[in-house]
Amino acid sequence: MNVQDHMWLDPAVLRPLTRTDVYALDLRGGEDRRSIRLRGEILELTGGRLASGVGDDGGVRPNVVLAAGGCGLADDDAFRMSRADGVLRIEGNTSLALLYGFYAYLRDLVLGRVVREGDGRTESPSHPMRMIDHWDQIDGTVERGYGGASIFFGIPGENDNGSYEHERPWNHADPFRNDLGRLTWYARLLASVGVNGIVLNNVNVRGGARRLIVEPYLDKVAELADLFDGFGIAVYLSVHFAAPISVGGLSSADPCDPDVRAWWMHTAKAIYERIPQFGGFLVKADSEGEPGPHEYGRTQADGANMLAEALRPYGGRVVWRAFVYDCHLDWRDRTRDRAVGAYETFQPLDGAFADNVCLQIKFGPVDFQTCEPANPLLHSLRATNIVVEFQIAAEYLGHQIDVNFAPAQWIDVMGQPVDGGSDGVPLSRSLRARALDPANVGYAGVANVGMGAHWTGGVFAQASLYGFGRMCWDAGLSAEHIADEWAALTFPGAGRNAQGKIAAILKSSNRTYRDYTAPLGVGWMFAREDHYGPSVCAFEYDRWGGVNRADRDGVGVDRTSTGSGLTEQYPSALRDLYADPARCPDELLLFFHWVPYGHVLHGGKTVVQHIYDTHFAGVERVREYVAAWDGLRGVIDGPRFENVAERLRMQLDNAVAWRDQINTFFHRMSGVPDERGREIYP
Amino acid sequence: MNVQDHMWLDPAVLRPLTRTDVYALDLRGGEDRRSIRLRGEILELTGGRLASGVGDDGGVRPNVVLAAGGCGLADDDAFRMSRADGVLRIEGNTSLALLYGFYAYLRDLVLGRVVREGDGRTESPSHPMRMIDHWDQIDGTVERGYGGASIFFGIPGENDNGSYEHERPWNHADPFRNDLGRLTWYARLLASVGVNGIVLNNVNVRGGARRLIVEPYLDKVAELADLFDGFGIAVYLSVHFAAPISVGGLSSADPCDPDVRAWWMHTAKAIYERIPQFGGFLVKADSEGEPGPHEYGRTQADGANMLAEALRPYGGRVVWRAFVYDCHLDWRDRTRDRAVGAYETFQPLDGAFADNVCLQIKFGPVDFQTCEPANPLLHSLRATNIVVEFQIAAEYLGHQIDVNFAPAQWIDVMGQPVDGGSDGVPLSRSLRARALDPANVGYAGVANVGMGAHWTGGVFAQASLYGFGRMCWDAGLSAEHIADEWAALTFPGAGRNAQGKIAAILKSSNRTYRDYTAPLGVGWMFAREDHYGPSVCAFEYDRWGGVNRADRDGVGVDRTSTGSGLTEQYPSALRDLYADPARCPDELLLFFHWVPYGHVLHGGKTVVQHIYDTHFAGVERVREYVAAWDGLRGVIDGPRFENVAERLRMQLDNAVAWRDQINTFFHRMSGVPDERGREIYP
Repeated sequence: MNVQDHMWLDPAVLRPLTRTDVYALDLRGGEDRRSIRLRGEILELTGGRLASGVGDDGGVRPNVVLAAGGCGLADDDAFRMSRADGVLRIEGNTSLALLYGFYAYLRDLVLGRVVREGDGRTESPSHPMRMIDHWDQIDGTVERGYGGASIFFGIPGENDNGSYEHERPWNHADPFRNDLGRLTWYARLLASVGVNGIVLNNVNVRGGARRLIVEPYLDKVAELADLFDGFGIAVYLSVHFAAPISVGGLSSADPCDPDVRAWWMHTAKAIYERIPQFGGFLVKADSEGEPGPHEYGRTQADGANMLAEALRPYGGRVVWRAFVYDCHLDWRDRTRDRAVGAYETFQPLDGAFADNVCLQIKFGPVDFQTCEPANPLLHSLRATNIVVEFQIAAEYLGHQIDVNFAPAQWIDVMGQPVDGGSDGVPLSRSLRARALDPANVGYAGVANVGMGAHWTGGVFAQASLYGFGRMCWDAGLSAEHIADEWAALTFPGAGRNAQGKIAAILKSSNRTYRDYTAPLGVGWMFAREDHYGPSVCAFEYDRWGGVNRADRDGVGVDRTSTGSGLTEQYPSALRDLYADPARCPDELLLFFHWVPYGHVLHGGKTVVQHIYDTHFAGVERVREYVAAWDGLRGVIDGPRFENVAERLRMQLDNAVAWRDQINTFFHRMSGVPDERGREIYP
Repeated sequence: MNVQDHMWLDPAVLRPLTRTDVYALDLRGGEDRRSIRLRGEILELTGGRLASGVGDDGGVRPNVVLAAGGCGLADDDAFRMSRADGVLRIEGNTSLALLYGFYAYLRDLVLGRVVREGDGRTESPSHPMRMIDHWDQIDGTVERGYGGASIFFGIPGENDNGSYEHERPWNHADPFRNDLGRLTWYARLLASVGVNGIVLNNVNVRGGARRLIVEPYLDKVAELADLFDGFGIAVYLSVHFAAPISVGGLSSADPCDPDVRAWWMHTAKAIYERIPQFGGFLVKADSEGEPGPHEYGRTQADGANMLAEALRPYGGRVVWRAFVYDCHLDWRDRTRDRAVGAYETFQPLDGAFADNVCLQIKFGPVDFQTCEPANPLLHSLRATNIVVEFQIAAEYLGHQIDVNFAPAQWIDVMGQPVDGGSDGVPLSRSLRARALDPANVGYAGVANVGMGAHWTGGVFAQASLYGFGRMCWDAGLSAEHIADEWAALTFPGAGRNAQGKIAAILKSSNRTYRDYTAPLGVGWMFAREDHYGPSVCAFEYDRWGGVNRADRDGVGVDRTSTGSGLTEQYPSALRDLYADPARCPDELLLFFHWVPYGHVLHGGKTVVQHIYDTHFAGVERVREYVAAWDGLRGVIDGPRFENVAERLRMQLDNAVAWRDQINTFFHRMSGVPDERGREIYP
C-alpha cells in the first residue's frame, strides 16, 4: 500500500490506546456498505476486538457500543455519544453516523478527551454538503496541484506533477492509477473529518476527461464510487458543458435544444444505472474560455436546470460554479473589475435555479487571494442553494511550501453576519435558511493532495485539509481550536510543549504569509503563471484584472461607487463600512480604495510604513518558525522533520524575496524612507 | 515540392527576363558538385538554354559565359562580371564563385542593372564566413522560431512550431523531416545571397539531438550536407559539451582528460569519414545552464582547443560562443551586470584559442535587444578569430509579426570604428586583420525560417534574412540600399512606386519598433517568457539581469565606473563618450546611465517627454504602415497582401499596448504630464 504518512489518523498511535476495547454493533436497519466498512475500520485502526453480537463476547462485555436506528436525531449524519455503566454508546440514525461517531471517538482518545460517566454530547454537521473538488486530470497531472501527481489518474510510478497545460502521455485504455490502497486511505481520512462528496476530475475538463461520463471509463468511475460509498462519500464528475458536441457528436450544446436535453437525459440514465449512488455533476461554464449557455444566448440557470432535469430522477445534484467573470479586461478601463462579475451574473437569477442545483461560489469576489471580503453573493442570495468554494490547494497561498493554515482566513470570512450588521446570523450558518432545498448547501474545498510522500507536499499543508473538513462539520470551531487538534493528532508523540509550538506556527501562519505578500488587501503581486513568488506588476497590465494601481502618490483599487462599484453589491451595513476609507478595515483598505501613501491607518501608521513594517515583520516571523522547528529536531520523526525543515528554508527565501521586491517597489514609487532605517534596496 | 513562396528568387519572374539567354560554362578545373548544381540552377531558374560546350550552340552564340579558373582573383568566392562583344562574362577561381556570379546576374536583371559593354565589376565577399545558425530541435520545434516548425526535423505535416521547452513526440528512428524539395529551395535562397555555412540544430542541444554526431543520425546529416554542399554551404552541428558523457558513456567531459580528448578525436574522425566537407562544431558552453569547461576548472580556451584539435586534421572549425554570463544575478546587487560577462571571460584569453577556433560574439553586450552598443570584445580582441552573431529571428524584435528590418541596426553597430575614434576601420572590416587565421572570421545569423507558407511568418521578415546575407557579402552596403533591393526583388511586378512604399516601411521599421518599445536603450520591458509585448517590470527583479531601475525620480542603468563598469571595457574614445551622460548618444543614454526624468537630451527634450513622444510617434508610424499597405491592395498578390495586412493589424495592437503601458508606467512613476496633453491612462 503506497501510504507512508497517515496524517491525523495513524493506526500505530490508535492501537495502543484501544487495545483493551471491545466494540459491538447494534444495527436495527441491518448491514449496509457503511456498516461493513465500519467493522473493517475497527479492525484496521484499533487494537481492540469486535464482538460478533451486541451482548457479551466470549465473556467480555463490550465497552463501546455503536447503535444505528431509532435514536431520533434530526440529521442522518449526526451521532450522539454518551457513557453509562462504563459503556460508551455511539448512536445515530444510520451506519454512516456511527462511522462518524467512531472516528470522533478515536480523535477524542488521542486528544485526551473523555466522555465521563453520565455525560454525553451530540454532534450534527453544520453543512449537509461537505465536498472535495479535485482538479486532477486524466493524464495524471493536477492543475494547481502541489502534492504530487494525481491519486486517481496516471501511470503507476509517475508521481511527479507536471505541467497541467501540456498534456503528457497517458494510457487511453485505462487512464486510472488504480492504487486502491492509497485511495482507501484517502477516503478514510476524508470520512474521518466528515467529508461526504468528492469530484474526481478538474473543472477545466480537457481532452479525454470529457469521456469519463461514458463507457468504458465510467466502469472505473463506478469502482471508485463503490469504494468511496463505503465511507459515505458520493462521487461526482466535472463535465464539459459542450459534451453533447465533444462526446455526443451533436452539433450544439444549447440547453434549450431538445436533442441536447435528450442526450444529457440519456447520459445521466446510463450513469445511474451503473452508479446508483452517483453524486452528480460539477460544471465550470462560461468561465475562462470554457463553453457554456451564454454561447447560445441562454442564462446560467438555463444551463444548470437542463442538467438538473437530467439528474433529478436519480436524486443527483448539479453543482454549478459562479466563477463567471470577464477574463479579457482592459487595464485602461477603470470601470471594469472582475470582482463584480459573479454578482452581476447570478444575483438576477436568484430563485431561478432548480432545487437540485447548487451554486458553488468562491468565498471572495476575486479568486482565492490572501485577503478578500466575502463574495457579495453570499450575502445577497435569498432563494438559491449555495455551496461556498475554498481552495485548500495553496495556489496563491504559498504552494504548500510556505506554511499557511488557510482555515483561519476562511473561518474569519464566513463569520461575517449575512446582513452585514453586527447581530445577524453568520454566513457560515445562514445557508440552509436561504436554500431552495436545505439539503443542497455546504462547502467545497479544492483538494491539496497528490502522490507525494506526505500527500500534501509540505506536512503542514495537511492541516488545511483537516481544518477544511472540521469547519464543514462544525461551524462553531475556531481556527485556533482546529490548529490545536491537528497538532495533537499529527504529532501525538511529540508532547504538549512541541504540539503547542507547532500549533503556534499554524495559528500565525496565514497572517504571516499575508504580511510578506499582499499589503492591505491589494493582492495579485504574484509571478504571472506560477502564482508563487513576487512579481509586483505581473498582473498590472494584464487581461485577468489583477491590479494594484500603484503610482508615485498612492496605491489601491477603487471599488466604490466612484470606481467599479463592488461596494454597492453588499448589504448596506457592509457597503457603508467598505465604501468609507476612514471606516474600512485596514486589511481591506487597498482592496476597496486607492489612497495616498501617507494615509493613516487605524493603528496610526501610514500606508507605506505599514507596508515596510509588515514585510520586515513577516520575514522575522518566518525566521522564528525556522528556529522553533529547529528546536524540535529529534522530537519529530526524521522524514516529517526534514520535510518541514526544507520547506521552511524555502519559505524564508520566498519571504525575503517578497519583502525586498515589495519594499523596493513601494520605496521607488513613494520615495518615502523607512522610518526605522532598515535596509530597502534602491 | 512544399514551397509556396520563392522569396527574392522567383523563377516565374526570372524566366521571362532570361528567355533569350544562352549560357555556356567554361570549367578549366573540370566538373564538381557546384558546377553541376550551377547547370541545374540555369535550367531551374531561367528561361534560357544552356549550351553544351563553350562555343556556339547549334548556331546560337552564348551571351552569358561562366568561366572558372585562372582569372587570378585573390578570393575563391569572388567573381568578376564584365561585358565585351555583347557577351557577359562571369569569371572566378571556382565553380562556387560562378554560382555566386550567376545569382548576382539574375539579381541585376530584376533590379534593372546592366553591365554595359566594356564595363565590369568584381565582387569579393567582405567576410569569409557567412553562417546561418538554426535553433531547430530534433522534435521539430524551433527555439525562438516564428516561421513555423523546423524545416530539418519533425513529422511531415506537423508544421506548427510548438513549445520548444516541452519535448513533443518525435520519430526516434528518423527525426528528419526529409522534405528535400524545400531544403533545396532553402539552400538556393541562402546561396543566392552568399551564405556558405549552416548549423542544423539548436545551440541548446537537448535530448536526442546530442546524438546527431553519431550514427544512425549522422547518415541523414550526410545527406543534407551533400545537398547543401552543391550550393557551397558547409553543414555544421551544434554539439553538447558533455557529449562524452551523454553520448559517449564516459564519466567526465573534462577537456584535459585523455579519454575525453580521445573520444572527440574518434568522433570527429567518424564524422569526416562520412562527410568530408563537414564544417565543424558550434558550441554553447558554460552558458545558461549548458555544460562547459568551467565545470572542470578549465578555461573556455581549454574547451574550445580540445575540440579544435579533434577537427584540425580535417580542416574543421570550432565555433565557440562567447555568450557566457551569470544568469543567476541578484537585482539587489548593483555591481553585477550580465553585460560585462563576455569581456570578463574572454578578453583575458585573447590569443589563447587555436587558429581553427572562431569566437562567436553577440553583436551587443547583452542579448539582441533593440538598442545596444557594440560588444566591447569586438573592439578589444587582437589575436582571436571573431564571428559576430546576429539574431535574424525576431525574438526581441517583434516575432516577425511587427515589421522590423534588423539589418539597419546591425549595420549601424558594425559601422563603429574599431578603436572607437572617428577615423578607425569599422568593426565590419576589422575582423581579418585581428584574426589568427583570416579565413576564420565572419558573421553568423540565427535563422528566422520555418515550415510556414512564407518561410518567415510575416513576409516582411524575409527582408532581414536577405539583408543578413547581403551584409555578410558586402560590408559597404547601406541598410537603405538593401531594403530597396529586397522590395524590388520580392515584389518585382508591383512597380517602382509600390516598391518605394514598401522599402520606406522597411527603412523606418527598426526605428519605429524601437520607438514604441525600448526608450533610450533601456530595453528588457518584455513579457517574461514570450519576449513579445510589454511587461514593464517582468525582468526588473529577476535573475536574468534585465533591469530598468526606474523609480519616481528617474530611470536607467548605471554601467559606468560607478555602476557595473561596462564603460571601462571600451577603447578610451568610446569609454569617454559612453561614460559621460552629457555626451552619451541619446539612444544609449539609459543603457549606460541612470538619469532624472527631467534630464535634457541632445535634442532638447526631457527624458520623460521623449518617452511619451516616441511612444505616441511609434504608434502613429505603424498606423501609416497600415494605411500605406492598404493602398497596395490589388497591387500585391493576395496571399502576401493578406499575410502582411494581418500582421500589421497585430503590430498596431502591439504598438498600442506598448505605448499605453510604457507611458502609463512612466507617468505613474514620474508624475510628469505629457506636455502635449495626449491621453496617458492613469
